[in-house]
Amino acid sequence: MIKDGLVENMTMLCDFYELTMANGYFNSELGSKITYFDVFFRRVPDGGGFAIAAGLEQIIEYINGLHFTDEDIKYLKSRNLFSPDFLDYLKSFRFTGDIWAVPEGTPIFPGEPVITVRAPAIEAQFIETYVLLTFNHQSLIATKANRIVRAAKGRPISEFGSRRAQGADGAIMGARAAFIGGVSNSACTIADIEYGVPASGTMAHSWVMMFDDEYSAFKRYCELYPDNSTLLVDTYDVLKSGVPNAIRAFKEVLIPNGITKCAIRLDSGDLAYLTQKARKMLDEAGLPFCKIVVSNSLDEYIIRDLLNQGAQIDAFGVGERLITSKSDPVFGGVYKISALEAPDGTIIPKIKISENIAKITNPHYKKLYRLYDKENGKAIADLICVHDEVIDENAPLEIFDPEHTWKRKTITDFRAIELQKPVFISGECIYPRYTTDQIRDYCAAQLELQWDEVKRFDNPHNYYVDLSQKLWDCKNSMLIRSKP
Amino acid sequence: MIKDGLVENMTMLCDFYELTMANGYFNSELGSKITYFDVFFRRVPDGGGFAIAAGLEQIIEYINGLHFTDEDIKYLKSRNLFSPDFLDYLKSFRFTGDIWAVPEGTPIFPGEPVITVRAPAIEAQFIETYVLLTFNHQSLIATKANRIVRAAKGRPISEFGSRRAQGADGAIMGARAAFIGGVSNSACTIADIEYGVPASGTMAHSWVMMFDDEYSAFKRYCELYPDNSTLLVDTYDVLKSGVPNAIRAFKEVLIPNGITKCAIRLDSGDLAYLTQKARKMLDEAGLPFCKIVVSNSLDEYIIRDLLNQGAQIDAFGVGERLITSKSDPVFGGVYKISALEAPDGTIIPKIKISENIAKITNPHYKKLYRLYDKENGKAIADLICVHDEVIDENAPLEIFDPEHTWKRKTITDFRAIELQKPVFISGECIYPRYTTDQIRDYCAAQLELQWDEVKRFDNPHNYYVDLSQKLWDCKNSMLIRSKP
Repeated sequence: MIKDGLVENMTMLCDFYELTMANGYFNSELGSKITYFDVFFRRVPDGGGFAIAAGLEQIIEYINGLHFTDEDIKYLKSRNLFSPDFLDYLKSFRFTGDIWAVPEGTPIFPGEPVITVRAPAIEAQFIETYVLLTFNHQSLIATKANRIVRAAKGRPISEFGSRRAQGADGAIMGARAAFIGGVSNSACTIADIEYGVPASGTMAHSWVMMFDDEYSAFKRYCELYPDNSTLLVDTYDVLKSGVPNAIRAFKEVLIPNGITKCAIRLDSGDLAYLTQKARKMLDEAGLPFCKIVVSNSLDEYIIRDLLNQGAQIDAFGVGERLITSKSDPVFGGVYKISALEAPDGTIIPKIKISENIAKITNPHYKKLYRLYDKENGKAIADLICVHDEVIDENAPLEIFDPEHTWKRKTITDFRAIELQKPVFISGECIYPRYTTDQIRDYCAAQLELQWDEVKRFDNPHNYYVDLSQKLWDCKNSMLIRSKP
Repeated sequence: MIKDGLVENMTMLCDFYELTMANGYFNSELGSKITYFDVFFRRVPDGGGFAIAAGLEQIIEYINGLHFTDEDIKYLKSRNLFSPDFLDYLKSFRFTGDIWAVPEGTPIFPGEPVITVRAPAIEAQFIETYVLLTFNHQSLIATKANRIVRAAKGRPISEFGSRRAQGADGAIMGARAAFIGGVSNSACTIADIEYGVPASGTMAHSWVMMFDDEYSAFKRYCELYPDNSTLLVDTYDVLKSGVPNAIRAFKEVLIPNGITKCAIRLDSGDLAYLTQKARKMLDEAGLPFCKIVVSNSLDEYIIRDLLNQGAQIDAFGVGERLITSKSDPVFGGVYKISALEAPDGTIIPKIKISENIAKITNPHYKKLYRLYDKENGKAIADLICVHDEVIDENAPLEIFDPEHTWKRKTITDFRAIELQKPVFISGECIYPRYTTDQIRDYCAAQLELQWDEVKRFDNPHNYYVDLSQKLWDCKNSMLIRSKP
């Protein structure tokens, strides 16, 4: 089952309590009760204004592949916790429910249902762990990558972090998510093969140290890769040795052949100072076309500072701080029950109360709309409605803050787009497969529809995520009834 | 090649530059030059006094499985960067070199070679990405887990973090590493099947919400799992509803059957206050044997504070802050060339110079010794030597600080143990396979040999990692010669 340390069938990547609950539902005649669960998150990492949804493709693969092998069932039997009937039931277990989700690459906001599951209790409960794991991880990295991309103001970002990723999957799916978030390429070769994330790379310090001297290492590299010569210039001394040797190699090998595509990379030292000096040396040597690439523990703040300080940089390589989202490495998506369905189809909303107001859930089977201004196309607010509500675009719509309900706004001339798309209907996947390129383009286009104020790194504008009057009334009455 | 979103063959999980360098070495007649690389790290996460090595088993699996498939070669060919001869060579590529490594579970310190690779340049260079990724990830989590285990002072820790892990592998290998670091069990079911990490779990809030009332949910759970009843008591109100309902369920279902193994779990609220109140209620109800388990964004600091404040806690569940090492989510292991071997077998030490003193490498093919006090068995210092040095345990040994060389200490009555063990010799794995249990026990035993001062969370004692006189002389002369 394990191949080269990784696992083929992810069915058993579940919290053990999914199994004890499943067996419990099965043996309490609750197993086939239709339930509704929402995936949502409460806080944008790094204090940002929005997150980017990612991971849906892998969630689909997981659900399509769900099955318990004989080996899995043998293991469960050995635990002496599960009934024989339940273990028998698992042999033909598969997902038969419905799933709606926002497309990958969509900007998403706290509190709104980004994935909604309607399925028999056992199935809906069982998929919790993997759905969250996948959504949380990839959304975390896509969101972080986009911050870094924004800081670079159009300069390309290379994702470099595999060696510091949290596991193989962290590297591969991290590269995929980073690409969705806007990086231009990745060092992770397999992410190119599997997901079409362009792989790139040139040399490490060891290349330089394998040769008798730096110049020979550079010259040989230019001979080998005349169209892909990015020389790492900080093995010995950037300004005294690295840059002069690179200039010499470019002039001797590339220029005589009419090649002007070349670059140097700096991976240490004060990048603001060194890149300005290097730029001057390259220009004075007649190589104004030579690009300067930098790396070394970069993130959005260091990139912003470097550019503010006049650093002469054409491209960035970003490693550990992107691939782990180092400054805030947890995306806190949760999976909460929101309703049950009676046998006659009536939906019974459910709410989780908490002393902590932020932890109170939104009950009911819901729909999520994004409202756009027809005039400028920009997003105005998201509105969470009860599933059967229809928004009339032709009438003025009053929206209000669900906590401070006196804060109200009437909008007109808007378009209301339903954000969740159907992904599974009765266990069948009906969602199209998009290429990673398509998802990346969609993400970029969606971000164009958000105001700059929402994209600020610090203290961004608090985008409105409101409840419809009907949903607010439902929630409020449940809260009132919950008080003894 | 991808099964359920995960990848079987990890050969192509490499930074693309490993491939451009490999092709470059191949076409510069450097490919079979014998090289030495060291894996080491520079800083213990969270300011701790030591780290715990982990991940070797997966590194071994990776190296044993190394091969390029036809599909891989087809991809590489499509990049138009690699010579036909090189692509042909890759068809029969395998690792033929030697690897030495410290066993998993060993406490390790900054600057020392924890893995040493001796192999033809292409092979030694190629494995860099995956070796680092695996070592960095698992060592990070084992180290963090051990901090949390130490904070709990003997109370068991359950690893709960799969849903917030950075990818599937982050969850599974993270659970394995956490177990090596001392947690008692994990929610991650597949980690039990594959690595023997005991899986455990009971219920989520959704279980409680599936029933008409909390008491019915608890009662049913106790009936189903009389020997495994941990009831989650914070769905509605811990003290007014959860604990009283749990007491009632235990008394009605378990006690009449003579069962006293039971527990409640709190997942929100002020855990110091609530656990003291709950303890009192349980005791007064005649259930002094009922355990109290807590969870909710815990880490070593919160656990220490809770226990200092008199919280009544028997066990902890720790999720996102363990599985991502949230407070410091990057383990900075690096892979640096340290020597070349001439055709006659002469070793030519190599050094990487840097303006940043901490980034200067230790040259040469080396050996790592740990020195123990014969009297009390405790570790005194680690000593990095040139490979051919032999330590005489019967003579006094003077060790000295490699930066402040006037700081000297003479030790007598000591034992010197070589820390690295042979793992691969000429491409053959000769390392025994240990169970995860054995590695965990070894780790615990090794930690007994470290002084408490090294295990302090903040400002721990700076354990000595010194260079032998011979190695120091070698390095110093290379530094002097490097100055223009």
